[in-house]
Amino acid sequence: MIQTQTPSVKGKDSTLADILKPISEEMQVVETALRDTTHIEYGPLAEVIEHIVSSGGKRIRPAVVLFATKFYPVDFDKVLALAAAVETLHTATLIHDDVVDDSILRRGRPTINAFWNSGATVLAGDYVFARAASFGAATGEVRVMERFAETLHTIVDGELRQLFRRRGGLPPREEYYHRIYGKTGSLFTLSTEAAGMLMGASPAETEALHTYGHNLGMAFQIVDDVLDFIGDERRVGKPIGSDLRQGTITLPVYYFAETSPQHPSLVNYWNGDNQDAAVEELVGAIRESSAIDATLAEASELVQKAIDALVVLPDVPARDSLRDLAAYIVERRE
Amino acid sequence: MIQTQTPSVKGKDSTLADILKPISEEMQVVETALRDTTHIEYGPLAEVIEHIVSSGGKRIRPAVVLFATKFYPVDFDKVLALAAAVETLHTATLIHDDVVDDSILRRGRPTINAFWNSGATVLAGDYVFARAASFGAATGEVRVMERFAETLHTIVDGELRQLFRRRGGLPPREEYYHRIYGKTGSLFTLSTEAAGMLMGASPAETEALHTYGHNLGMAFQIVDDVLDFIGDERRVGKPIGSDLRQGTITLPVYYFAETSPQHPSLVNYWNGDNQDAAVEELVGAIRESSAIDATLAEASELVQKAIDALVVLPDVPARDSLRDLAAYIVERRE
Repeated sequence: MIQTQTPSVKGKDSTLADILKPISEEMQVVETALRDTTHIEYGPLAEVIEHIVSSGGKRIRPAVVLFATKFYPVDFDKVLALAAAVETLHTATLIHDDVVDDSILRRGRPTINAFWNSGATVLAGDYVFARAASFGAATGEVRVMERFAETLHTIVDGELRQLFRRRGGLPPREEYYHRIYGKTGSLFTLSTEAAGMLMGASPAETEALHTYGHNLGMAFQIVDDVLDFIGDERRVGKPIGSDLRQGTITLPVYYFAETSPQHPSLVNYWNGDNQDAAVEELVGAIRESSAIDATLAEASELVQKAIDALVVLPDVPARDSLRDLAAYIVERRE
Repeated sequence: MIQTQTPSVKGKDSTLADILKPISEEMQVVETALRDTTHIEYGPLAEVIEHIVSSGGKRIRPAVVLFATKFYPVDFDKVLALAAAVETLHTATLIHDDVVDDSILRRGRPTINAFWNSGATVLAGDYVFARAASFGAATGEVRVMERFAETLHTIVDGELRQLFRRRGGLPPREEYYHRIYGKTGSLFTLSTEAAGMLMGASPAETEALHTYGHNLGMAFQIVDDVLDFIGDERRVGKPIGSDLRQGTITLPVYYFAETSPQHPSLVNYWNGDNQDAAVEELVGAIRESSAIDATLAEASELVQKAIDALVVLPDVPARDSLRDLAAYIVERRE
């Protein structure tokens, strides 16, 4: 039985490196696959791919795949393909995001968009999509490929909604959940569900993995959104308040707006003032309010749901790792 | 035995509609699948997809798939999936091409308005890629999916090379063939080779289909490039001389440059004058030269190779249709 009181304690004590220790060698193999540009003939493209991939984040998605495929035997080649496919699909969508947002920095490093023109960046993103498709095909599972295509639909649908959203005033909360599912939840869900498919897990087990991935992904994005209020700029890699500055309304804003709908900083912001001073004021007000704790409590609930779902899976060490990873995700501060 | 003297005669007499008659109902089913937006929840996206798809071209690629899958029995669902997949992948790459070409023209001075539009266009293209991947997965064949991913690699690699090409002077001819293979040849090759895979054709037969598709695709693009010199603007859908205006060197220019390297219009163009008057002069000089005939002769040779390859396939009516389609491709004037 999984000890449900464990995660937050364990999460606080564990660094990500500790949690990933059991899969550190496999993570290295994934990293090598991601960075492999030997098959790219065209020099400038190889350099750009190397740059993009090496400025990647914490590789949480491949880690989830590696742990989630440890319940039943699977060819490591297929696991590797799945792990690389989800991370590569993630990377491809980020590259196009940078064009859409015209971002110059991501995670504190220059985006391709900063040194290539946007046309070249679009093509580089397409190339990375092609890599994701190759890795996906290398899983050898048509059902996994279908789920990849569906996930890309979901991600892009979410981005388009976000691009064409109405501004001013608080949108329905459902829009927020819809958007973060598209942005993050869908790919985490794919990662764990496809892991179930590769292992030939039972429908109940695959459903459990689906539930784990879905809740983990949603919690991951909610915490990301909190870090835009309380994070350390250097560690988060972007300035505090970026979302509000771009007009993106995240969960802390909902909690704040629900308890203090008439707060002057908020009214001012709804009236269209998203200059630095106005955003800083609102960020300050939200930090001092109960909104951050309420948001983190919601993330913790999701993480608990993720952990609870694992109970139907065999009691192997990877199950504890998935639990610790979930706990880490809500406790992390970068 | 295929009558090798037939094609040009038949091609001249046949309209595309005549050639496609045996598959007209199936083409309608493909068209319906391509235009189906019922699964798109988000209204503005559905409208854009409908617009993009309905402004599509002659649907030569799906036609090739439909004929090329008639040598052995295949589930029509799989054939439909392949036909829709190749056309959709083609459409997706065209959408991103438009962004790429626009961003070159506007480089350095993007308006906010132009910027938002191109962002949305990038995402719409991504959505169409996702559709292509869904159709590809619906073939149920992992090998077909692998070939799709490889083809996307090839297409994007070609576009990036084109984007970063050196200007001024005649590049090696190999660059031209490399580019048109990426742009057109690769997807025609995929269409026919994947047809062989779906039918479970023998390696020799699949190889023959590969050869047919490859040569047909190359000829198709060469004729497209000729039409940029001799076509009717209204029927071709773009102004004559577009390629030269954009600095794209196509096969007629090679033939012309080889016979008249010192022609004043050409020297002027190499020296960087790509204003309308200079381009019109060069287009006129090339039209009056033997370069057009030489280029069309090269396309005819490729078409002949395509037709000759068909000989190893069973003598069914679709084989004649593929022959007629190849002949049409070199005789067409739009």
